[in-house]
Amino acid sequence: MSQIRQDLTTQEWVIIASERARRPRQFAEKKPPQLPEYEPSCPFCPGNEKMTPPEVSALRNKGRANQPGWRVRVVPNKFPALSPISRKREPERKLLDGFFRLMEGAGKHEVLIETPKHNQLIPELSYRQAEEMVLMLRDRYRALRELEYIRVIVIFKNQGIRAGTSIVHPHWQIVATPIVPQSLRRRLAVATRYWDDNGGCLYCDLIEAESKSGQRVIEEDNDFIVFQPFASRSPFETWILLKEHSACFGHLSDRQAKALGRTLKRTLTRLYKVLDHFDYNIVIYTAPIRDEEEEYFHWYLRIVPRLSMIAGFEIGSGIFINTALPEETAKVVRRVKI
Amino acid sequence: MSQIRQDLTTQEWVIIASERARRPRQFAEKKPPQLPEYEPSCPFCPGNEKMTPPEVSALRNKGRANQPGWRVRVVPNKFPALSPISRKREPERKLLDGFFRLMEGAGKHEVLIETPKHNQLIPELSYRQAEEMVLMLRDRYRALRELEYIRVIVIFKNQGIRAGTSIVHPHWQIVATPIVPQSLRRRLAVATRYWDDNGGCLYCDLIEAESKSGQRVIEEDNDFIVFQPFASRSPFETWILLKEHSACFGHLSDRQAKALGRTLKRTLTRLYKVLDHFDYNIVIYTAPIRDEEEEYFHWYLRIVPRLSMIAGFEIGSGIFINTALPEETAKVVRRVKI
Repeated sequence: MSQIRQDLTTQEWVIIASERARRPRQFAEKKPPQLPEYEPSCPFCPGNEKMTPPEVSALRNKGRANQPGWRVRVVPNKFPALSPISRKREPERKLLDGFFRLMEGAGKHEVLIETPKHNQLIPELSYRQAEEMVLMLRDRYRALRELEYIRVIVIFKNQGIRAGTSIVHPHWQIVATPIVPQSLRRRLAVATRYWDDNGGCLYCDLIEAESKSGQRVIEEDNDFIVFQPFASRSPFETWILLKEHSACFGHLSDRQAKALGRTLKRTLTRLYKVLDHFDYNIVIYTAPIRDEEEEYFHWYLRIVPRLSMIAGFEIGSGIFINTALPEETAKVVRRVKI
Repeated sequence: MSQIRQDLTTQEWVIIASERARRPRQFAEKKPPQLPEYEPSCPFCPGNEKMTPPEVSALRNKGRANQPGWRVRVVPNKFPALSPISRKREPERKLLDGFFRLMEGAGKHEVLIETPKHNQLIPELSYRQAEEMVLMLRDRYRALRELEYIRVIVIFKNQGIRAGTSIVHPHWQIVATPIVPQSLRRRLAVATRYWDDNGGCLYCDLIEAESKSGQRVIEEDNDFIVFQPFASRSPFETWILLKEHSACFGHLSDRQAKALGRTLKRTLTRLYKVLDHFDYNIVIYTAPIRDEEEEYFHWYLRIVPRLSMIAGFEIGSGIFINTALPEETAKVVRRVKI
């Protein structure tokens, strides 16, 4: 018999049906090809800096802007989902045919290239590189939040074709949007209501409950806890939470940002050791800019392995079907020697 | 400059960024292999009826239950997401560690095989087959709603690997769940509020607005309107709405169910002519069983072509990025000769 579990942060349900892992598959899984360290046609490889728009930030060993010698490089997305407008105005809004709501696609869309090497995945970064990657993500958050018309900054990573990437060279994306997405509004509403009902932060209580139970915990230190959530949407879904209460990713101190980089490297190292090759998304949920000081919300980082496809049931109901118990997958991942 | 459009039924936002269609792709799209009409190892092909659990319903030319001779066949899913419990009780609910909410995975999970032919897609069905397919979906809705512990019936189809199917032989799935998913709750709440603000059904007004504008309409007759929604989440997303107000798919009359079968066949024929091969999901949004008579909600069918992958931005924000204007794709699809 399967279980239906509730995600306390969204009140959405997940079906955990481990029986379904046994169903036949008529499609073979293919291992992706080995990649070279440098790819002449790749816009993110060193030497090809002119293939991207001019950089907005970089950390370098040598060289000038838009030349090789960088360790981390941030550029505007050449095909942005949202584009900047004058900082003095709000995006234009319209009502078409008295019915359809529409707004100018104002915002920023940046790409953070965390390594000059075409084939270097996060587990293969040095600890210093991993630290600099997170420091730079935080600094870009801080820079983009200054635009008056921006409401939310979405930070994410698409690793591999099943995770929706179009460029294989490892990179993050940062989208500054002029709206608060419903999915974030939902998390804020649920957390606010939890505060009213219980007099505390939902996520702080979640950290305490996961830590105490220990069943789903991968690792925990003074700064961060890493666990596979009770209502994981997919096998090996993993969350990283800062134990100190904070609604805003951009408020990370230097020390905390570096610790997050190391924690993320260790966590992905463990996951790769168990799953071999796998595609995944990383997303950071952080409060809207005007709610950065909020005591009701708590930012978090979510790693979503893309081991199966999102299908009609998920699209139609919003309920995900997960074929693995997080208690079982967490046990395997926790035991990995790193 | 891209546009940000609001889906009026969920108040979620979609970014329409047609510029992004020009971005390079480092992965090749592969045409799927030609399939045979019969596949000896396929559990859904005639002659292999013993490979599925015993059928719960069928339309047959000849033969007895669980033998060849059927035109449409319904069987329990061999690897169900949810399993039946005694109809006299509610599913068991628990609170683990005083914090984590959990419920027994009670429900039903059926498979409807709409054709005995392994390779027969919906456009290749006869009009009679298409009619019988929808009549049977409606009849299964009516049968499953009778279970006391069921709250919502989710009907969907996964066509192709990118749409998450694990078995290629064309089929639908019907999942009867003991909970009301948040995504349906959201639609009900938005529609109820629209009623309060405007004194009418949101979906009836949407039908009128789309019909009047005509820009996104594919076809329209006395029973149904087919259009690509203003805030399409992906290129060529297509909705089919019954023009008569009804919250419940199961309330379709025989005449309406047959008309829906023909409309669905025509619509998919058009889409295949434009897109050649493509993977897609079909989902039917219908009211919870206790809200079947609701005047605030209106059931609808949604076809979601899976031309791109759901990536980190969508997971992190719930905002989809669509690279095509529905006005432009609708024009192409509307002009297809069928």
